[in-house]
Amino acid sequence: MILTVTLNAALDLTYRVPHLVPHASHRVREVTERPGGKGLNVARVLGALGFKTTVTGFVGGETGRVLRALLAADAAQDADAAQEAAGGGTASVTDALFQVAGRTRRTVGVVDETTGDTTQLNEPGPHITPEEWDGFLAAYRDLLDQGPDAVALCGSLPPGVPVGAYATLIRETRTARIPVLLDTSGEPLRRGLAARPDIVKPNTEEIAQITGTAEPLRAARAAQRRGAHAVAASLGADGMLLVTQDGAWSAAVPERLAGNPTGAGDSAVAGLLSGLAEDLPWPDRLARAVALSAATVRSPVAGEFDEPTYEQMLPSVRVRRAEAP
Amino acid sequence: MILTVTLNAALDLTYRVPHLVPHASHRVREVTERPGGKGLNVARVLGALGFKTTVTGFVGGETGRVLRALLAADAAQDADAAQEAAGGGTASVTDALFQVAGRTRRTVGVVDETTGDTTQLNEPGPHITPEEWDGFLAAYRDLLDQGPDAVALCGSLPPGVPVGAYATLIRETRTARIPVLLDTSGEPLRRGLAARPDIVKPNTEEIAQITGTAEPLRAARAAQRRGAHAVAASLGADGMLLVTQDGAWSAAVPERLAGNPTGAGDSAVAGLLSGLAEDLPWPDRLARAVALSAATVRSPVAGEFDEPTYEQMLPSVRVRRAEAP
Repeated sequence: MILTVTLNAALDLTYRVPHLVPHASHRVREVTERPGGKGLNVARVLGALGFKTTVTGFVGGETGRVLRALLAADAAQDADAAQEAAGGGTASVTDALFQVAGRTRRTVGVVDETTGDTTQLNEPGPHITPEEWDGFLAAYRDLLDQGPDAVALCGSLPPGVPVGAYATLIRETRTARIPVLLDTSGEPLRRGLAARPDIVKPNTEEIAQITGTAEPLRAARAAQRRGAHAVAASLGADGMLLVTQDGAWSAAVPERLAGNPTGAGDSAVAGLLSGLAEDLPWPDRLARAVALSAATVRSPVAGEFDEPTYEQMLPSVRVRRAEAP
Repeated sequence: MILTVTLNAALDLTYRVPHLVPHASHRVREVTERPGGKGLNVARVLGALGFKTTVTGFVGGETGRVLRALLAADAAQDADAAQEAAGGGTASVTDALFQVAGRTRRTVGVVDETTGDTTQLNEPGPHITPEEWDGFLAAYRDLLDQGPDAVALCGSLPPGVPVGAYATLIRETRTARIPVLLDTSGEPLRRGLAARPDIVKPNTEEIAQITGTAEPLRAARAAQRRGAHAVAASLGADGMLLVTQDGAWSAAVPERLAGNPTGAGDSAVAGLLSGLAEDLPWPDRLARAVALSAATVRSPVAGEFDEPTYEQMLPSVRVRRAEAP
């Protein structure tokens, strides 16, 4: 089982409108609701790849109730599909979210059908009390006792959660001898690095913010010196860069892809985790992450990956040793 | 008691963002949720004026649950306030909404804190089945048996409701000898007019669409010929125009007002209904509608009216006999 943590889980709404014009009134043509937040997205991709996944984080209010109902509906559908496929195929996502008094935030993605662009509106998360944080920590330890193959800590922190929250969770996880990946930004990333996670997966902007250098290889090595065992930096259309104790690699698909990059980073995390769970060599994990990212950019549905594209992309990913510039 | 009907009730969300930029990602600074849809807005204004109001229409799903909880919280707060004020003051709104299987729509108003503009995103309403519509009609007849002083039928129709729904409700209401006001647009307005409502309150665009003429007095008279006993047309910053069987009047505040016009039309409906319930002469009803509209435009909170502004505006509204142009 792979465990993903989404402290600031969300109910993601997608609105399709003919054309978004500021100050105008719009009839929304189509509304989609789905569980959101980075760790929940990672879990969905892992599930589609056939990995059993458990999700935790905070959930509350009517929006939280909808989120849990959607997770349960997905799990029921996946169970039916797995039975039909007689083994293999999609694995379901187990809900181990921690109930709080506050209301799960919504995010609204407004898709402009004329330009294809998405405008994103993200509500602030619920306020977490110190008692709720303590309760979560106890529940997290119980989840670690189930012996997950790997843990991913994903996304921003809701108000009230200590800024060193990820550092605390990384220490707990490492004490339990379970590999842990961190995907966050800003101060929670800075503090998290110091707790020595197995992998961090920043993007270009996040790593530059932390290390003060925009040159990817130099920045990745700086992040490694700050404590991460491995740094997998996503470079947008330029693929990914990986720095480990064994060396550095870069990987990309042969051609630049047009599409929607929403969720590409979460798919990369799923690729890295799945490779970790199967104990693949680093270059293979990286290839998987890059192919999944590309298949997500190319998917017609934002944040989902296109399985045939993934199968087709995976052998074409070029992994190269990276040299200092 | 005044009854307001909102067939396409909504959960209104207001998002404040520093500046809305299409295709960008925005952190929402502040989220407000409140019961929405024209008839619910009218009821809130009537309540603030001290009129007992009952609301009906369709409600369902988790969003409907939140809407009802907000109505109940407002009612509890109003009851406390009324007790403190020892009579007079705010009257509470009674929830007589009709439960359906579909989900109450959300509307999202994105307030740009730099420009002050609001961008509106309106979800489609829930699909209403023929059985639900029949059930609603029976519940509506029961509400008419309670003998409301007046009824307001407000807003758009959700999918599945017959386009002649308002015409049906108007006939039922007139059979019960209860005055009925209609505030809608397009085909539901056209059909509603033929059922001879006591008052219609179109805006300039709605009345032009129905009558084919943009000149307000001519258009109002045309709408009257199509069946309405009285036509109260809101002309935006130019105030209102009223055509009844006794004559025609126009009314406006002495100076043009800057502010947010959201809900000004709903406040005008509340003004007309309150004047009707108190059996005021037509020019006084019109003055009340115009002053409430103006106090809504001037209110810092979208869709609410500023009570001191209302008290101050009311004596300053100029009502004049309107002449054919």
